[in-house]
Amino acid sequence: MTDHRLARGAATRRRLLDAAVACLAELGWSGSTVSVVAERAGVSRGALQHHYPTREDLFTSAVEHVAERQSAAVRSLAGADVACVVRAIVDLYTGPVFRAALHLWVAATTEPRLRPRVVQLEARIGREAHRMAVELLGADESVPGVREVVQGLLDMARGLGLASLLTPDAGRRERVVERWAGIVGGALGGAG
Amino acid sequence: MTDHRLARGAATRRRLLDAAVACLAELGWSGSTVSVVAERAGVSRGALQHHYPTREDLFTSAVEHVAERQSAAVRSLAGADVACVVRAIVDLYTGPVFRAALHLWVAATTEPRLRPRVVQLEARIGREAHRMAVELLGADESVPGVREVVQGLLDMARGLGLASLLTPDAGRRERVVERWAGIVGGALGGAG
Repeated sequence: MTDHRLARGAATRRRLLDAAVACLAELGWSGSTVSVVAERAGVSRGALQHHYPTREDLFTSAVEHVAERQSAAVRSLAGADVACVVRAIVDLYTGPVFRAALHLWVAATTEPRLRPRVVQLEARIGREAHRMAVELLGADESVPGVREVVQGLLDMARGLGLASLLTPDAGRRERVVERWAGIVGGALGGAG
Repeated sequence: MTDHRLARGAATRRRLLDAAVACLAELGWSGSTVSVVAERAGVSRGALQHHYPTREDLFTSAVEHVAERQSAAVRSLAGADVACVVRAIVDLYTGPVFRAALHLWVAATTEPRLRPRVVQLEARIGREAHRMAVELLGADESVPGVREVVQGLLDMARGLGLASLLTPDAGRRERVVERWAGIVGGALGGAG
């Protein structure tokens, strides 16, 4: 295969993954068929299935790759203060990627073919988010209790994202972020 | 209508609401048709529709009434210590009622007829949960920052519930609850 064809394949995959996440976020699992994604990406159904043989492959790959790209962007905040880091983590859970992931998680509870894939994916994304938060917060997990502070913060971010699903309230979110940044900073500083 | 018929009507409604929540939690929104709920409750479809004319009526009423019953049970903890209260709040978000509510919330993002009903319901349940948490924690919301501590705690509970959806991990949950009960207790005591 020539370099040109390889590059074209990568560009097609990226278009498909972006389209799959956008469809999931907007239309939910039942509305996000393979045909809808192919059409939105401007790719034939056959070409889609060449890259992603099953619907499960397509959507789990899409959420994984787009979430990775997002968390790579947050990593660039290294050195920022706690409030900045907490805000960036909360933002990860309020956009279309979280919405897409939520549709996938919920669908997996009742779709036996999807479930094992999503359980693995959730574990990978969760570990990655935890590692990123520890790094950015400069948290020392060898100190007892520090691990749970970081986990609780990530749970709070996830819960804020869920609350924003139907009724986004940026003002409330910002006040909670500000207060909890202070609490997390104190808990890490006090323990560290 | 005689007292006997009234009582029978209330018992039928309760059976329907319990069946609706159980179906949503197990089968999700698309699997939870009116017929499935009627069958599970042992009630005719006509009788169901007499009490709840539309599918939206049935499921929003079900989540509302069962959530109310649950939070009334938690209120009985008045006077318990912070760790107990935090654990009980987190438990509200990890059972089948939360799972049912989650299916309803997610379905509402793509179902225009469901959305306005669920937005109202979410606001009522959210206010109720907040009021309950404030009471049980003895939090004084006139002190700046206290309101956001309680809100963040409820967001954390919601996020822990979401994380438990596919991979329940009671050990992790308990460690986060214990650590954060200490932090929340400190933040409320320190501010109050």
